[in-house]
Amino acid sequence: MGVGVGPGDPELLTLKAVRALESADVVAHFAKAGNPSNARATAARYLQATTRELPLLYPVTTEHPTGDAAYRGAIEQFFNESAAAIAAHLQTGQVVAVLSEGDPLFFGSYMHIHVRLMNRFRTEVIPGVTSMSGCWSAAGLPIVQGDDVLTVLPGTLPESELVRRLRQNEPTVVMKLGRNLPKVRRSLIESNRLANAIYVERGTMHDERMMPLAEKADDSAPYFAIVLVTNAWWRS
Amino acid sequence: MGVGVGPGDPELLTLKAVRALESADVVAHFAKAGNPSNARATAARYLQATTRELPLLYPVTTEHPTGDAAYRGAIEQFFNESAAAIAAHLQTGQVVAVLSEGDPLFFGSYMHIHVRLMNRFRTEVIPGVTSMSGCWSAAGLPIVQGDDVLTVLPGTLPESELVRRLRQNEPTVVMKLGRNLPKVRRSLIESNRLANAIYVERGTMHDERMMPLAEKADDSAPYFAIVLVTNAWWRS
Repeated sequence: MGVGVGPGDPELLTLKAVRALESADVVAHFAKAGNPSNARATAARYLQATTRELPLLYPVTTEHPTGDAAYRGAIEQFFNESAAAIAAHLQTGQVVAVLSEGDPLFFGSYMHIHVRLMNRFRTEVIPGVTSMSGCWSAAGLPIVQGDDVLTVLPGTLPESELVRRLRQNEPTVVMKLGRNLPKVRRSLIESNRLANAIYVERGTMHDERMMPLAEKADDSAPYFAIVLVTNAWWRS
Repeated sequence: MGVGVGPGDPELLTLKAVRALESADVVAHFAKAGNPSNARATAARYLQATTRELPLLYPVTTEHPTGDAAYRGAIEQFFNESAAAIAAHLQTGQVVAVLSEGDPLFFGSYMHIHVRLMNRFRTEVIPGVTSMSGCWSAAGLPIVQGDDVLTVLPGTLPESELVRRLRQNEPTVVMKLGRNLPKVRRSLIESNRLANAIYVERGTMHDERMMPLAEKADDSAPYFAIVLVTNAWWRS
């Protein structure tokens, strides 16, 4: 079972997610080795003392281009082993909840477990509020209306691709910032859209920060940062 | 205050949304004249007997091209009057929760109230699970991963635009189906993507239905229907 825990505010779990966590036999969560799981931190207050936890620790600590064969191999092996560990619990009839930041099937690691187990076990996915919804709500920024097209870009794309997409002058969300922020900023300048770009860091969390990207003095960003590029339709 | 009530299952409201509804003085909800409000139906169990309700009834019953001047004028006037009705409550210090299906700032009517009142009153937006998250979760369909780009298209776009976008061969969500379904189907055939298109109607609701669009015999669809077009990465 994939359980979306939402963008970070523990109040933004759904009632269904809370009930699933309270009744699961095993709660699995992804984290980078040496770091606490962000999803677990968001859901911590809903875990029972008797719940068994299954941490799934990524073998690498930063994201690499997915074209990198060695990286892909290590990640494939990690997901295979994680799926096997979960399957071992499922085979004994236990209910396993896999926590996902945001929504499980929207860039969530859970989906790599899902596709490995969906033909062998009954799966259920509890959707969550995405990080982008959390960010544009925190910023009070209407993102799309009427006939608008929304494009969601991972900041991992090549600069030329980011520029090409941004030049379409449509509402755009750029996710997966982290060390991609300098490239994303250059792409926004090149496409002449920096003026409509809002930077939101850790949206809906207690230490949330936001500002126009043009006013952000440095280019450091955590993984939990997003750039929202609107067409500011409400000002016209 | 904009309150997202999620895709339709009453269990998919967030804890924060439920608390907001329980404590609001006034709960406003949009509906087409003569129809019950879908958002209100989803949230009904959380409304208090003492809560005052403010129905906001659209003056038109079907969506028209937004280029139509008379339609635009009627809609503008409707949002102006709705904002004024809400402002009258806010001025007396009452808390007004405006219900939104899905997420308030993602194609939600609430945003038209928001932009009219945000400079005069304190606003807060409680994000919700979007209908598209509800639909791809119900279908168990991993929508985007890794470096994927997600495009969200309103079915109201011209056919040539739909075809052009679909030809990019990327994960795509088509919303606002209703009477646009024949056009959307033709666009999927023209772009050679019908085989990867899943139709989901009233996702997460008790009467949810889903099927490959190629297997859907007719072209009737309610407003609450979505087409999910994946690149089926997990099969490769």
